[in-house]
Amino acid sequence: MSDGPSTESAAYREAGVDYATLDAAKRLALAAARSTSTIRLPHGAVFSEDSRGEPAQVIEVGGLRLGFVLECLGTKSMLAREIEEASGQDHFAAIGYDTVAAVVNDLVCVGALPLVVNAYFATGSAGWYAGSRHASLVEGWRRACVDAGAVWGGGESPTLSGLVAPDEVDLAGSAIGIVPEGREPLCGAALAPGDEIVLVASSGLHANGASLARQVARHLPDRLEHRLASGTSLGAALLTPSHSYVALVRAVLEDGLPLHYASHITGHGLRKVMRAQRELTYRIEALPEVPEVLGFLVEHADLSPAEAYGTLNMGAGFALYLAPGAAGRAVALAAAHGLSAMRAGVVEAGPRQVLLEPLGVRFSGEQLELA
Amino acid sequence: MSDGPSTESAAYREAGVDYATLDAAKRLALAAARSTSTIRLPHGAVFSEDSRGEPAQVIEVGGLRLGFVLECLGTKSMLAREIEEASGQDHFAAIGYDTVAAVVNDLVCVGALPLVVNAYFATGSAGWYAGSRHASLVEGWRRACVDAGAVWGGGESPTLSGLVAPDEVDLAGSAIGIVPEGREPLCGAALAPGDEIVLVASSGLHANGASLARQVARHLPDRLEHRLASGTSLGAALLTPSHSYVALVRAVLEDGLPLHYASHITGHGLRKVMRAQRELTYRIEALPEVPEVLGFLVEHADLSPAEAYGTLNMGAGFALYLAPGAAGRAVALAAAHGLSAMRAGVVEAGPRQVLLEPLGVRFSGEQLELA
Repeated sequence: MSDGPSTESAAYREAGVDYATLDAAKRLALAAARSTSTIRLPHGAVFSEDSRGEPAQVIEVGGLRLGFVLECLGTKSMLAREIEEASGQDHFAAIGYDTVAAVVNDLVCVGALPLVVNAYFATGSAGWYAGSRHASLVEGWRRACVDAGAVWGGGESPTLSGLVAPDEVDLAGSAIGIVPEGREPLCGAALAPGDEIVLVASSGLHANGASLARQVARHLPDRLEHRLASGTSLGAALLTPSHSYVALVRAVLEDGLPLHYASHITGHGLRKVMRAQRELTYRIEALPEVPEVLGFLVEHADLSPAEAYGTLNMGAGFALYLAPGAAGRAVALAAAHGLSAMRAGVVEAGPRQVLLEPLGVRFSGEQLELA
Repeated sequence: MSDGPSTESAAYREAGVDYATLDAAKRLALAAARSTSTIRLPHGAVFSEDSRGEPAQVIEVGGLRLGFVLECLGTKSMLAREIEEASGQDHFAAIGYDTVAAVVNDLVCVGALPLVVNAYFATGSAGWYAGSRHASLVEGWRRACVDAGAVWGGGESPTLSGLVAPDEVDLAGSAIGIVPEGREPLCGAALAPGDEIVLVASSGLHANGASLARQVARHLPDRLEHRLASGTSLGAALLTPSHSYVALVRAVLEDGLPLHYASHITGHGLRKVMRAQRELTYRIEALPEVPEVLGFLVEHADLSPAEAYGTLNMGAGFALYLAPGAAGRAVALAAAHGLSAMRAGVVEAGPRQVLLEPLGVRFSGEQLELA
């Protein structure tokens, strides 16, 4: 079994993403953030230290357990802009949907169901608001809130001349959620050897890998209008809206399933399977089908399996970890929500690592230093 | 009494800020957001429609009233970058402080005290992390959280190559807060004729007007190193950290003062005095001292009094609205927190407008169409 990449691939670095530097900066910020933990909060509220490094934060106040998250889309909006320039097609509704999905899929990882989502649309010029893209973005955002069962509260939409490129938009969002009564926040403590791992299908790229996708497209004669084998254009395939996993997590919680953890598979790809800060091994015995568009990117960026699965979701957008015997029911609930899912592996005692058995790839704990 | 500007000044538009277009886009987004209000939320949570258009949103859940906000710094970080390039001085701690202040000063407007603040640092290249600026930014952010009595929860720090300019950082933040027991959220309903208006001093520019400041600096021979009459450099004066008003609002609430409303004076300047969506007249009989740096900007940008007070805070960073007779106590509490404040005016029955009597300037309700 070969080790995964100890550093990011050169191809990925060239795309402008240097995770080593960024992870070091994240650790500095995390240490400063941690130093505020001793602050005495109003109303006896307690910030859950267990939630540091998790995809969302947990606050206990007045008998409630709240989830809180701020997430961003990254550079995927640049793909929509490039497609619009090349073909006139407006894919900004997908971009709006993607941003909310990035936010709420992170929030449900800690077992909190979203209540309110706020928007951040930072454009580089007021000219960005010409044409249909803003209305599309807003409509996609709204639909994603509806699908997540959350109210769109408000937000900010500054124009940042000279800071954001004139024809681009920087998208992020924030959400508050609540852990249902009778359930515990999911911060990793409940994970145990023997737990079953369910991988839930992604719809394609989701929010991560957009820089790589743009780099690949630049080397094709037809660029984003390149036709994939299925006949779909590369651009349209890349802009398939992300899946939202909120309804599935809600169903799993309401069904009383013994859900021990959840992980949103985003940047760092399937290394995120070991997101929990636990010394445990995650043995993946079966992998989901790879969406055509991701297979295409991997081939054209010449990524090894370790690089591909260590950076992209490769068809696995979300992971559920359940007590032994519960995976089948979770897979059925996913199907009822229109999501393909599979019992893909098991949690074992052992060092912190992900073993992708079908590929002979191993990701060690040091390859996911998020915290 | 002359009317304020019906549109933004040409000088301000040239600085890249076209509020008319942006306000129209905001209204479109607000309508879409409003359409999600009927969604049934988990745990019987209720989103407060009264809080739409307010600086923060309010959610009632499990007997608690939560505040929720997402805010951004705007282009002020570009000033810090320009100063660093010109003189090597690192003012990024002020920038971090400013961003948190922008967030929590909005949050306390609805009467909620912050619990947790999350960070959004979007850079244009990993190279941004070279040098001291990231550590300074983090330290300023941390200090502002401490001053606000809030835990720094987490956040996101993406590198957005090609979207954000390579040497810039796009800063925003989000916060959850709680309305203290026995108090009501401040969404404007409690405002009444006869209420006293207290204006609390700003420290200078705060988060709004940075584009204008950069435009003014470009026309000076020494640019940001230009010396003001006091001897301070223009750059250092512009980068004076914002005041945080959290401790003051907490004191006012804990003191049991009849606080009816609060407004964070940001973009749109003193037009924000009529932030509440109420048909009321705000008569300002006295104005605070204008910080040297704002006076300098107004002079060099050749802004009329209406333009100046309609775009910049002009020394008034925050407004408190209290039942008759309570202003004196609020001013004393401000002084105890190191903030200069004054009983500046009164709320009256009448059309929605702000009257700046010392200047003979009137801002009508149509000049603040935020919602």
